[in-house]
Amino acid sequence: MSTEELTLGQAQELRRGTVVLACLALLRAPQYGYALLVTLNDAGVTADGNTLYPLLRRLEKQGLLTSEWNTEEARPRKFYQVSPEGSRVLAGLVREWQELVTSISRLVKESG
Amino acid sequence: MSTEELTLGQAQELRRGTVVLACLALLRAPQYGYALLVTLNDAGVTADGNTLYPLLRRLEKQGLLTSEWNTEEARPRKFYQVSPEGSRVLAGLVREWQELVTSISRLVKESG
Repeated sequence: MSTEELTLGQAQELRRGTVVLACLALLRAPQYGYALLVTLNDAGVTADGNTLYPLLRRLEKQGLLTSEWNTEEARPRKFYQVSPEGSRVLAGLVREWQELVTSISRLVKESG
Repeated sequence: MSTEELTLGQAQELRRGTVVLACLALLRAPQYGYALLVTLNDAGVTADGNTLYPLLRRLEKQGLLTSEWNTEEARPRKFYQVSPEGSRVLAGLVREWQELVTSISRLVKESG
Protein backbone atom coordinates (compact mmCIF):
# COMPACT_ATOMS: atom_id res chain seq x y z
CA MET A 1 0.00 0.00 0.00
CA SER A 2 1.17 3.52 -0.77
CA THR A 3 1.61 6.30 1.81
CA GLU A 4 -1.60 7.89 0.49
CA GLU A 5 -3.61 4.69 0.83
CA LEU A 6 -2.34 4.06 4.34
CA THR A 7 -3.09 7.65 5.35
CA LEU A 8 -6.57 7.56 3.79
CA GLY A 9 -7.44 4.28 5.51
CA GLN A 10 -6.43 5.64 8.89
CA ALA A 11 -8.10 8.99 8.27
CA GLN A 12 -11.35 7.07 7.67
CA GLU A 13 -10.93 5.42 11.07
CA LEU A 14 -10.57 8.84 12.65
CA ARG A 15 -13.75 10.13 10.99
CA ARG A 16 -15.76 6.97 11.61
CA GLY A 17 -15.39 7.48 15.35
CA THR A 18 -17.02 10.91 15.14
CA VAL A 19 -20.13 9.98 13.10
CA VAL A 20 -22.45 9.47 16.09
CA LEU A 21 -21.28 12.68 17.76
CA ALA A 22 -21.77 14.59 14.50
CA CYS A 23 -25.26 13.08 13.91
CA LEU A 24 -26.47 13.90 17.41
CA ALA A 25 -25.09 17.45 17.14
CA LEU A 26 -26.73 18.04 13.76
CA LEU A 27 -30.03 16.46 14.77
CA ARG A 28 -30.68 19.01 17.48
CA ALA A 29 -32.67 20.41 14.53
CA PRO A 30 -34.95 17.86 12.78
CA GLN A 31 -33.55 16.55 9.52
CA TYR A 32 -34.15 13.67 7.12
CA GLY A 33 -31.51 11.07 6.31
CA TYR A 34 -30.33 12.21 2.91
CA ALA A 35 -30.01 15.89 3.91
CA LEU A 36 -28.03 14.80 6.96
CA LEU A 37 -25.76 12.70 4.74
CA VAL A 38 -25.01 15.71 2.53
CA THR A 39 -24.29 17.91 5.57
CA LEU A 40 -21.97 15.28 7.06
CA ASN A 41 -20.07 14.96 3.81
CA ASP A 42 -19.79 18.73 3.42
CA ALA A 43 -18.42 18.89 6.94
CA GLY A 44 -15.73 16.32 6.09
CA VAL A 45 -17.28 13.63 8.31
CA THR A 46 -17.52 11.19 5.45
CA ALA A 47 -20.41 8.78 5.68
CA ASP A 48 -22.35 6.86 3.07
CA GLY A 49 -25.99 5.82 3.14
CA ASN A 50 -25.10 2.19 3.86
CA THR A 51 -23.54 3.32 7.11
CA LEU A 52 -25.74 6.26 8.00
CA TYR A 53 -29.25 4.89 7.54
CA PRO A 54 -28.76 1.80 9.72
CA LEU A 55 -26.99 4.03 12.26
CA LEU A 56 -30.01 6.37 12.44
CA ARG A 57 -32.32 3.40 12.99
CA ARG A 58 -30.03 2.05 15.70
CA LEU A 59 -29.87 5.43 17.48
CA GLU A 60 -33.66 5.61 17.35
CA LYS A 61 -33.93 2.10 18.78
CA GLN A 62 -31.56 3.09 21.59
CA GLY A 63 -33.83 6.02 22.36
CA LEU A 64 -31.34 8.72 21.35
CA LEU A 65 -33.36 9.89 18.35
CA THR A 66 -37.06 10.23 17.67
CA SER A 67 -38.51 10.21 14.19
CA GLU A 68 -41.59 11.58 12.49
CA TRP A 69 -42.86 11.29 8.94
CA ASN A 70 -43.36 14.55 7.12
CA THR A 71 -46.02 13.92 4.50
CA GLU A 72 -46.64 17.52 3.50
CA GLU A 73 -44.18 17.40 0.61
CA ALA A 74 -44.68 15.41 -2.62
CA ARG A 75 -42.37 12.76 -1.23
CA PRO A 76 -42.89 11.66 2.39
CA ARG A 77 -39.71 11.88 4.42
CA LYS A 78 -38.75 10.56 7.82
CA PHE A 79 -37.31 13.33 9.97
CA TYR A 80 -35.04 12.49 12.86
CA GLN A 81 -34.32 14.61 15.92
CA VAL A 82 -32.44 14.03 19.18
CA SER A 83 -34.53 12.94 22.15
CA PRO A 84 -33.90 14.34 25.66
CA GLU A 85 -31.85 11.17 26.31
CA GLY A 86 -29.92 11.82 23.08
CA SER A 87 -29.17 15.36 24.28
CA ARG A 88 -27.69 14.00 27.48
CA VAL A 89 -25.52 11.49 25.59
CA LEU A 90 -24.48 14.29 23.20
CA ALA A 91 -23.42 16.50 26.12
CA GLY A 92 -21.31 13.64 27.53
CA LEU A 93 -19.76 12.93 24.13
CA VAL A 94 -18.88 16.58 23.57
CA ARG A 95 -17.00 16.56 26.88
CA GLU A 96 -15.22 13.29 25.94
CA TRP A 97 -14.38 14.73 22.54
CA GLN A 98 -12.90 17.89 24.01
CA GLU A 99 -10.73 15.85 26.39
CA LEU A 100 -9.60 13.65 23.53
CA VAL A 101 -8.74 16.68 21.38
CA THR A 102 -6.65 18.10 24.22
CA SER A 103 -4.88 14.73 24.76
CA ILE A 104 -4.09 14.20 21.10
CA SER A 105 -2.87 17.77 20.58
CA ARG A 106 -0.53 17.30 23.52
CA LEU A 107 0.80 13.97 22.20
CA VAL A 108 1.34 15.36 18.73
CA LYS A 109 3.21 18.40 20.07
CA GLU A 110 5.14 16.81 22.94
CA SER A 111 7.03 14.15 21.11
CA GLY A 112 7.15 16.20 17.88
CA MET B 1 -28.76 0.73 28.32
CA SER B 2 -28.30 3.74 30.57
CA THR B 3 -27.19 7.19 29.43
CA GLU B 4 -23.77 6.48 30.95
CA GLU B 5 -23.38 3.17 29.11
CA LEU B 6 -24.44 4.69 25.80
CA THR B 7 -22.05 7.60 26.29
CA LEU B 8 -19.17 5.34 27.31
CA GLY B 9 -19.69 3.06 24.32
CA GLN B 10 -19.63 5.97 21.91
CA ALA B 11 -16.71 7.62 23.68
CA GLN B 12 -14.74 4.40 23.10
CA GLU B 13 -15.51 4.67 19.39
CA LEU B 14 -14.12 8.19 19.39
CA ARG B 15 -10.91 7.11 21.09
CA ARG B 16 -10.48 3.96 19.05
CA GLY B 17 -10.17 6.05 15.90
CA THR B 18 -7.22 7.95 17.32
CA VAL B 19 -5.10 5.00 18.48
CA VAL B 20 -2.95 4.78 15.33
CA LEU B 21 -2.38 8.54 15.24
CA ALA B 22 -1.42 8.50 18.93
CA CYS B 23 0.93 5.49 18.49
CA LEU B 24 2.73 7.03 15.53
CA ALA B 25 3.07 10.36 17.36
CA LEU B 26 4.44 8.71 20.51
CA LEU B 27 6.78 6.39 18.61
CA ARG B 28 8.79 9.23 17.13
CA ALA B 29 10.86 8.24 20.18
CA PRO B 30 11.57 4.49 20.50
CA GLN B 31 9.41 2.72 23.06
CA TYR B 32 8.38 -0.80 24.00
CA GLY B 33 4.81 -2.01 23.94
CA TYR B 34 3.93 -1.96 27.60
CA ALA B 35 5.38 1.50 28.24
CA LEU B 36 3.45 2.77 25.22
CA LEU B 37 0.26 1.23 26.60
CA VAL B 38 0.74 3.03 29.92
CA THR B 39 1.40 6.36 28.14
CA LEU B 40 -1.70 5.92 25.96
CA ASN B 41 -3.87 5.19 28.98
CA ASP B 42 -2.45 8.14 30.90
CA ALA B 43 -3.23 10.33 27.89
CA GLY B 44 -6.86 9.16 27.90
CA VAL B 45 -6.48 7.24 24.63
CA THR B 46 -7.65 4.02 26.21
CA ALA B 47 -6.14 0.90 24.69
CA ASP B 48 -5.54 -2.56 26.07
CA GLY B 49 -2.80 -5.00 25.23
CA ASN B 50 -5.13 -7.20 23.18
CA THR B 51 -5.67 -4.26 20.85
CA LEU B 52 -2.31 -2.54 21.02
CA TYR B 53 0.14 -5.42 20.52
CA PRO B 54 -1.46 -6.76 17.33
CA LEU B 55 -1.76 -3.15 16.12
CA LEU B 56 1.97 -2.57 16.60
CA ARG B 57 2.75 -5.75 14.65
CA ARG B 58 0.40 -4.67 11.88
CA LEU B 59 1.95 -1.21 11.65
CA GLU B 60 5.39 -2.80 11.45
CA LYS B 61 4.20 -5.14 8.69
CA GLN B 62 2.83 -2.13 6.80
CA GLY B 63 6.25 -0.50 7.07
CA LEU B 64 5.13 2.33 9.35
CA LEU B 65 7.15 1.15 12.32
CA THR B 66 10.49 -0.52 12.71
CA SER B 67 11.44 -2.63 15.72
CA GLU B 68 14.59 -3.61 17.51
CA TRP B 69 15.23 -5.88 20.47
CA ASN B 70 16.97 -4.26 23.41
CA THR B 71 18.77 -7.04 25.24
CA GLU B 72 20.86 -4.86 27.56
CA GLU B 73 18.32 -5.04 30.38
CA ALA B 74 17.53 -8.15 32.42
CA ARG B 75 14.42 -8.66 30.32
CA PRO B 76 14.76 -8.25 26.55
CA ARG B 77 12.23 -5.84 25.13
CA LYS B 78 11.15 -5.05 21.61
CA PHE B 79 11.33 -1.32 20.95
CA TYR B 80 9.24 0.20 18.20
CA GLN B 81 9.89 3.47 16.37
CA VAL B 82 8.28 5.18 13.37
CA SER B 83 9.93 4.59 10.01
CA PRO B 84 10.37 7.42 7.46
CA GLU B 85 7.18 6.10 5.80
CA GLY B 86 5.44 6.16 9.18
CA SER B 87 6.48 9.79 9.63
CA ARG B 88 4.88 10.70 6.31
CA VAL B 89 1.65 8.91 7.23
CA LEU B 90 1.73 10.61 10.64
CA ALA B 91 2.08 14.03 9.00
CA GLY B 92 -0.93 13.28 6.79
CA LEU B 93 -2.97 12.03 9.73
CA VAL B 94 -2.16 15.09 11.82
CA ARG B 95 -3.52 17.27 8.98
CA GLU B 96 -6.66 15.09 8.70
CA TRP B 97 -7.11 15.20 12.45
CA GLN B 98 -6.84 18.99 12.55
CA GLU B 99 -9.45 19.32 9.78
CA LEU B 100 -11.75 16.91 11.60
CA VAL B 101 -11.36 18.81 14.88
CA THR B 102 -12.30 22.04 13.09
CA SER B 103 -15.32 20.39 11.42
CA ILE B 104 -16.63 18.82 14.60
CA SER B 105 -16.16 22.00 16.66
CA ARG B 106 -18.16 23.85 14.04
CA LEU B 107 -20.97 21.26 14.01
CA VAL B 108 -21.18 21.20 17.78
CA LYS B 109 -21.34 25.00 17.98
CA GLU B 110 -23.47 25.76 14.95
CA SER B 111 -26.51 23.75 15.72
CA GLY B 112 -26.04 24.08 19.50
